[in-house]
Amino acid sequence: MTGKPLRLIPLGGLGEIGKNMMAVEYGENILIIDTGIMFPENDMLGIDYIIPDFRYLLDKRDKVRGIVVTHGHEDHTGAIHHVLREFPAPIFATPLTRGLLEVKLKRGGLLQDADLRTVQAGDQVQVGPFKIEFFHVSHSIPDAVGLGITTPAGLLVHTGDYKFDHTPVDGWPTDFAKLAEFGGRGVLALLADSTNADKPGWTPSEAVIDSALDEVFRTAKGRILVGTFASLISRMAQVARAAERHGRSMAFVGTSMVENAKMARKLGYLDVPDSLVVPIDHALRMPPSKVVLMCTGTQGEPSSILGRLSTGSNRMFDIKAGDTIVLSSHPIPGNEEMVHRTINRLFQRGAEVIYDAIAPVHVSGHASQEEMKLMLQLVRPQYLVPVHGELRHLKQHAAMAREIGLPAQNIAVVENGTVIEFRDGEMGIGERIPGGYVFVDGSGVGDVGPSVMREREALARDGFVAVHLHLNAKRGALRGEPEILSKGFVFTREAEDLFARARDLIRRVAAEAEDTQDLDQRLESDLRKFFYSETRRRPMVFVFVSSDGR
Amino acid sequence: MTGKPLRLIPLGGLGEIGKNMMAVEYGENILIIDTGIMFPENDMLGIDYIIPDFRYLLDKRDKVRGIVVTHGHEDHTGAIHHVLREFPAPIFATPLTRGLLEVKLKRGGLLQDADLRTVQAGDQVQVGPFKIEFFHVSHSIPDAVGLGITTPAGLLVHTGDYKFDHTPVDGWPTDFAKLAEFGGRGVLALLADSTNADKPGWTPSEAVIDSALDEVFRTAKGRILVGTFASLISRMAQVARAAERHGRSMAFVGTSMVENAKMARKLGYLDVPDSLVVPIDHALRMPPSKVVLMCTGTQGEPSSILGRLSTGSNRMFDIKAGDTIVLSSHPIPGNEEMVHRTINRLFQRGAEVIYDAIAPVHVSGHASQEEMKLMLQLVRPQYLVPVHGELRHLKQHAAMAREIGLPAQNIAVVENGTVIEFRDGEMGIGERIPGGYVFVDGSGVGDVGPSVMREREALARDGFVAVHLHLNAKRGALRGEPEILSKGFVFTREAEDLFARARDLIRRVAAEAEDTQDLDQRLESDLRKFFYSETRRRPMVFVFVSSDGR
Repeated sequence: MTGKPLRLIPLGGLGEIGKNMMAVEYGENILIIDTGIMFPENDMLGIDYIIPDFRYLLDKRDKVRGIVVTHGHEDHTGAIHHVLREFPAPIFATPLTRGLLEVKLKRGGLLQDADLRTVQAGDQVQVGPFKIEFFHVSHSIPDAVGLGITTPAGLLVHTGDYKFDHTPVDGWPTDFAKLAEFGGRGVLALLADSTNADKPGWTPSEAVIDSALDEVFRTAKGRILVGTFASLISRMAQVARAAERHGRSMAFVGTSMVENAKMARKLGYLDVPDSLVVPIDHALRMPPSKVVLMCTGTQGEPSSILGRLSTGSNRMFDIKAGDTIVLSSHPIPGNEEMVHRTINRLFQRGAEVIYDAIAPVHVSGHASQEEMKLMLQLVRPQYLVPVHGELRHLKQHAAMAREIGLPAQNIAVVENGTVIEFRDGEMGIGERIPGGYVFVDGSGVGDVGPSVMREREALARDGFVAVHLHLNAKRGALRGEPEILSKGFVFTREAEDLFARARDLIRRVAAEAEDTQDLDQRLESDLRKFFYSETRRRPMVFVFVSSDGR
Repeated sequence: MTGKPLRLIPLGGLGEIGKNMMAVEYGENILIIDTGIMFPENDMLGIDYIIPDFRYLLDKRDKVRGIVVTHGHEDHTGAIHHVLREFPAPIFATPLTRGLLEVKLKRGGLLQDADLRTVQAGDQVQVGPFKIEFFHVSHSIPDAVGLGITTPAGLLVHTGDYKFDHTPVDGWPTDFAKLAEFGGRGVLALLADSTNADKPGWTPSEAVIDSALDEVFRTAKGRILVGTFASLISRMAQVARAAERHGRSMAFVGTSMVENAKMARKLGYLDVPDSLVVPIDHALRMPPSKVVLMCTGTQGEPSSILGRLSTGSNRMFDIKAGDTIVLSSHPIPGNEEMVHRTINRLFQRGAEVIYDAIAPVHVSGHASQEEMKLMLQLVRPQYLVPVHGELRHLKQHAAMAREIGLPAQNIAVVENGTVIEFRDGEMGIGERIPGGYVFVDGSGVGDVGPSVMREREALARDGFVAVHLHLNAKRGALRGEPEILSKGFVFTREAEDLFARARDLIRRVAAEAEDTQDLDQRLESDLRKFFYSETRRRPMVFVFVSSDGR
């Protein structure tokens, strides 16, 4: 007897597989795991952010039984309003994750439409044919969970983002016992985080940051500014404790930082006494040695607090000599240049800057190689589906699993949009469906594709020249001077001679033209050649021709 | 009695200080050290490369007595033709560096104008009042030197790019004895490489790469491709030796790789038997297990060999399942995304990819912290001027020097364009002169500045819309339809409705206009608002108005 197949579909992630969204499908039932966004890479010009391509699910709208969000980071929550608009299914999340989702949905005016349901690690809920058991994992945000999903085809274990931290900030390590219990029950497939698959050893505990912060607080004479992500609630807690130990007051700077801290405090995930927290305007009037400010901008974003401080363009306050700035984060790949530029500029302004190359003020929230092997040993799955990581990380994860003894054919390294099917306990690779990513730019979702991107690339490289000329009724003669407008090509004020010669060329070509039918195209082609031979640049060229006669 | 001041001027480097060019000035005499280029950062749109801003020297042309190039890497040689055009002074370089400069000058048609003079490590030459002693340093290219410069004000030691490798590829370690001898003589100031100032310990020897390559050659069943920089002559030698040990023939792929290998072999810096090297077309016909190909493209450049192989657009050959690709390099900061994308794509095409996170197939060519301390202890300078590195590295270098016992006031952490003066044995900070960098774009040197760059940024973000309309003699009425042209803004074929409404707006505004004087500006402003409210994007908008009447 052949049962229905159980289908796993990694749906989103920019380069990373199954990171922002996955779907589990069995017969008429679909479960969505995570709804995240990614930030554009450097050559994705003008793009605001990127969401998973979930076209495949649109035809199956009524089959979506539920949405599970594993933790509160942007790359797992950020697309919630895009997903909710299409799939009005119940959303399951732990209290902090739910709180951060609410902040997001409220901003988008969608909170009243959302069927949010709170779960706790240890709970289990039935969603269609899926029995979901939530288990705690330690990560760089509290209240993160992994999932045990009992399906008619067998038990799936999804790790979410995790590390095996024995001394986590919230004192709540990853649930080893539950993982072992799953292992004992028999696991069909493990879907496991591969982010750090090329990092040997064991990721340091968040606890090492406490010592590094103590060292900073002990030696800093002036103000301390700690930069990190607005969703790094654990880091806020660590800074608060250091502030308490060293007698400094603490202020949060920036909207998202303030909002998230408020939500985390309200829900009890950020246990900071009221006496410790002061508003920023108050903090700025206190003696420098008595305050620590928490702000965003560790990725070198020019419009963030640290970005503005580094260029002296922050409205509320400036960097002073004697300030100590801690960048408690690691540059996201692609941001290194901007981060380093920001660090150099903060040094220039007289601050002392402490970043992860200098002191352990940040550690990864993801498991390294030995932890990934431990996960495999605890869960002892029949099949492994490496997720969360680029193809190179998945390959490395697969190599480790083979070393441990999992047969190569029991490991599925796939890309987004490749369906993995389990049928009668056997894994196979199914169809290929759309599963890439979609650009969001302004209010447009998915309308910027390769052709617009190529135009932006060309404009970014060499700019454009637009020409407007007016032909007299009499053939070949121009009325007035041709207008030339250029942007991004040459510094117009110094290029007068170049444009004067371009106008000569235009007059000559117009005068020699047999007919004015294709004059615009002929001029565009001639001007392109002219500008290239003069400047070795290739601006886009456009010509508008008016004529009295026509 | 106050003597003339000795002036040190770091002149170029993108973020890095004194990297691409330095000047030493004493009275009527100037010595230039290095003539390098840098590659643009991700937000320097359309820029081909970057050269030092040496405006300061242009007024002092006749005082430039000589140019010294410390080694053959691009960031020390690449601007030679820009420098040579302004300063026809003798150029001093070791044989390999000279050979690589000749390749460059020949391509630019400038070889006959260059007064190239060969020096050997151990030589000394007198250039104006400067006695220059060249001493060997180990780096990731053979024949690199540092400089001892005896000036009327005292002895300067410039390390160039260096590491203390005890087992370098060419068997020639950095000249400890000479450094110690300088130390004994008494050194006024040490100018020392700071690149790896935030790397603890000691940079691994190039020899570790031999073992990593042996492992690759032992296990690879099919072809091996090794990617690296075209100027990494030492790496070519290491691959050649591995090929010899494992019975594979070797082919060089790509113009710069072939040219540099030829030059290095001719000069004896790449000791490879003729029998080992085969042309690429020959190699492609050999059994895969019998060849290794050396190519460029480890920085993810789309037009490089590895870049083209990763997208399946290489003309001569393709990646096959079973190929092993070794990326023997480290991503230059800013290139990480492109490098990782290339690695993922090569995996996608079925290749095995070995890169530095997986195996030690690359090591840095620069000294780490313990080596930098050793340099300080050997040379025992009175003053330290950290160079070659970003401000954050120089600060870290300074911190190490203070730990060793150098007084803080004897260390000059400065930026490009800040003059350091020695007068009567005392160091002081002098004037600030132009010392940044200059963009080279096409045939233009320095004509692309902040305003053109801002235009390119705006165009890259949201593109532009150009409108052309023709007014009838009768006020307010349009002749024909307004023409709308847009690039990089929206996908035009799907935006017909948007542009139809824009045309309605144009007709309405034109009809309501009291006079046509400022119609173009009014339309531009109204269209900007319209497009923003419709799309939340801000394209540049330009309107050309023709009219019969005018």
